[in-house]
Amino acid sequence: MKQYEQLAFDIARSIQEGTLCRGEKLPSIRKTSFNRKISPSTVFQAYYLLEARGLISARERSGYFVTGGGAGLPQLPEPSMDTDSEVTQVDVSELVFEILESTRARKVVPLGSAFPSPLLFPMARLARTMSACVQSMDPWSTVTDISPGDANLRRQIALRYMIDGLHVPAGEIVITNGALEGLNLCLQAVTKHGDTVLIESPTFYAALQSIERNGLKAVEIPSHPRDGIDLDAMEHALKRHKPAACWLMTNFQNPLGSLMPDEKKKDLVALLTRFNVPLIEDDVYGELYFGDKRPKPAKAFDTTGLVMHCSSFSKCLAPGYRVGWAAPGRYAKAVERLKLTTSLATSVPAQITLASYLAKGGYDRHLRSLRHTLMLQQMKFIEAIERYFPEGTRLSSPAGGYFLWVKLPDGVNALELHRVALNNGISIAPGPIFSSQKGFTDYVRLNYGHIWDEQIEASIATLGTIINRLAKRQVIKP
Amino acid sequence: MKQYEQLAFDIARSIQEGTLCRGEKLPSIRKTSFNRKISPSTVFQAYYLLEARGLISARERSGYFVTGGGAGLPQLPEPSMDTDSEVTQVDVSELVFEILESTRARKVVPLGSAFPSPLLFPMARLARTMSACVQSMDPWSTVTDISPGDANLRRQIALRYMIDGLHVPAGEIVITNGALEGLNLCLQAVTKHGDTVLIESPTFYAALQSIERNGLKAVEIPSHPRDGIDLDAMEHALKRHKPAACWLMTNFQNPLGSLMPDEKKKDLVALLTRFNVPLIEDDVYGELYFGDKRPKPAKAFDTTGLVMHCSSFSKCLAPGYRVGWAAPGRYAKAVERLKLTTSLATSVPAQITLASYLAKGGYDRHLRSLRHTLMLQQMKFIEAIERYFPEGTRLSSPAGGYFLWVKLPDGVNALELHRVALNNGISIAPGPIFSSQKGFTDYVRLNYGHIWDEQIEASIATLGTIINRLAKRQVIKP
Repeated sequence: MKQYEQLAFDIARSIQEGTLCRGEKLPSIRKTSFNRKISPSTVFQAYYLLEARGLISARERSGYFVTGGGAGLPQLPEPSMDTDSEVTQVDVSELVFEILESTRARKVVPLGSAFPSPLLFPMARLARTMSACVQSMDPWSTVTDISPGDANLRRQIALRYMIDGLHVPAGEIVITNGALEGLNLCLQAVTKHGDTVLIESPTFYAALQSIERNGLKAVEIPSHPRDGIDLDAMEHALKRHKPAACWLMTNFQNPLGSLMPDEKKKDLVALLTRFNVPLIEDDVYGELYFGDKRPKPAKAFDTTGLVMHCSSFSKCLAPGYRVGWAAPGRYAKAVERLKLTTSLATSVPAQITLASYLAKGGYDRHLRSLRHTLMLQQMKFIEAIERYFPEGTRLSSPAGGYFLWVKLPDGVNALELHRVALNNGISIAPGPIFSSQKGFTDYVRLNYGHIWDEQIEASIATLGTIINRLAKRQVIKP
Repeated sequence: MKQYEQLAFDIARSIQEGTLCRGEKLPSIRKTSFNRKISPSTVFQAYYLLEARGLISARERSGYFVTGGGAGLPQLPEPSMDTDSEVTQVDVSELVFEILESTRARKVVPLGSAFPSPLLFPMARLARTMSACVQSMDPWSTVTDISPGDANLRRQIALRYMIDGLHVPAGEIVITNGALEGLNLCLQAVTKHGDTVLIESPTFYAALQSIERNGLKAVEIPSHPRDGIDLDAMEHALKRHKPAACWLMTNFQNPLGSLMPDEKKKDLVALLTRFNVPLIEDDVYGELYFGDKRPKPAKAFDTTGLVMHCSSFSKCLAPGYRVGWAAPGRYAKAVERLKLTTSLATSVPAQITLASYLAKGGYDRHLRSLRHTLMLQQMKFIEAIERYFPEGTRLSSPAGGYFLWVKLPDGVNALELHRVALNNGISIAPGPIFSSQKGFTDYVRLNYGHIWDEQIEASIATLGTIINRLAKRQVIKP
């Protein structure tokens, strides 16, 4: 990131977090220049950028004032404690499919979608890369690039691990049909029918579905919107349930947006190592951090090969190409073989395209721009929610990703909101789809990865109106 | 197919089947022209083609004589009866992986490979199509083309069914990551842990692996190299084992090459319907027929939605693209959802490329040429095997596909042959990988889908020498 971008980024975050409130005066250009040891013109560039984005505005002879952002720090939702860690047979409802279906309809405003806007990605450059790659493709790669995958792509991924300070040999990496296939294969590699798996509460619904499909049992461990899974509860569950695996997201968890601090990740790995329980780490949002560097995966603290790290390019570079991977530690061979017998290979044109794109450089530049956009989008969403949603609404402001976890005012039911909103052409992701126990009935996940425009603002206003109505009816009812 | 191609094709088949033997004189151009009601120049073109391929040669003033092909009809192997239909826990060995690994090494002659040569496919035209498609790709297709898949591709596939006389609505089709994923999802849709599945003996090893992975039990039903599974044995097994599903290949079965006659397919579907057992029909070789029309799938005889028909473009058009599909009858919704939770989507650039290729036409022209090549390849292989393999060898001559099922002379062990051959840089697929009971120890499957050249001929000669040695040692031993 350039210096002026960094500065704009920091100020925007301060506004977003309420450290700088609306109406507040920004430090002068001269003062900031002095404090930051950067040129006044750099500061000016940053202020200009923020002004262009509607976050600050200049008043003649008075300096710059905050015009965007909320009135103060949004209150964090309470930790999600509405589960008592009982073992439950997972039974994922029609609901998830219904919601997935609704987000596919183009006329529906996709606040419930799991995907960011495809317009945020370098689709044209990817297309040119693919065009060049496929026209010079070695026909024999259709045979050699079956599981574990294309050698160049595996090397490029290993290189990215190395740059982030992790040693993951290319030989450990298995290319998969998106992260989802990787996660499924990792789960199959370490569990057998009837086993128990620790997951977060709330959790990504695909984990619930995978557990259900494989005849496994889930134990849900409470998770905090700020720093993730509760390790004390996890230790208790490890002793009580003797699970075969633990599946969670360390960075910008879906749906919470929580980010586990590095120290906590270290403790997590140590705890699981003590019980010899493999960790399936879903890290698809790790590159979408708003801070100054990529948060480490738990795999960085693994010394015994117990962590199976899964990620993909679907959320940060190439949606629809369906290229993901697993770095399954000591289970690499097992996962490679499961891939072979499950789907043989990942689409070869897609594999060689990603390998070539990564080799040519430009991925980090794209990522910087994507993160920047998502951060600004988050601010706009939070601001709008604070403006339109009624009192009693609480929400997180995650340090990465593109999901907000919103607590509705007392008495408003997320499933009812979902139905009414969908009737109004707006999709949301209601809390109950993130729990095998259908908990989180007063939470929704909102996707801020779609480009801010009048339609989005109007749909948030509409949601606010619906919530207001539902809340009032609730008050009248009893 | 053009008239002269059809004639050449018919004559080549007659040579292959031994109807026309080496040294025999072909009917004169005039006579053939008269019989076939085609012009003498068309007959000449056909003879010219056959001569160019080394199958016939002209002797001055005497006409054309057969120079290629075998000395007569190769004897069919006995039906595979070395299984007694007992339920067995499937335990697929290291062997399959070892063989898959060996066929990936480019220096090994790939007679054991499951894939035909990628050089037989229109890779350049596919690349141009992909290039055009991906550069005009709608970014939102990354969201809309998730399971059940791209609407245009599903329509194109439905259209092909229609042309073959089957009514399969586009809405029933689920695009999968190759046929293998489709087969796996179909199996999961209709079975639960501990269930029993009927399969053929010998069977495609991926079926064994899938059954093992899902905690199911296999009952192997004897299958004949000519016309496939034994329906009496199947009826007996249906009564005795109450299976949850039946998984088999109706057309050019792997490894046997057997082709079930249409009448028998009808009986098969009627039998399974009577017991209400769904059929998972793997039909990936159906387009590779050497006869005059595509053999029907069993699905053509299904009136109750019990047949789950799976196929792909991997074996007949676009290897490595990983685009397959399932037409799962009444289980379509379940399979669509399993796809969603297993791998979400099939690579979108690959999907839209296939849709565009099919829409533009040219697929049937490619298929004709591919079938023609494979048929001629089969003749060359059979001829070479007859020349180089010792007495006591028996082999099938399938009417499609690219596999020969070869019975070795008494006492020659396929696994031992595999080891020795691999040490000689030649891969084969030994019989035991096609059975959960490790039967078929004196059978091998040979792939004739690789372009005939001196190296292939030399490797068949080497195999012959090895088999000779192993057979003789056997004779000396006792």
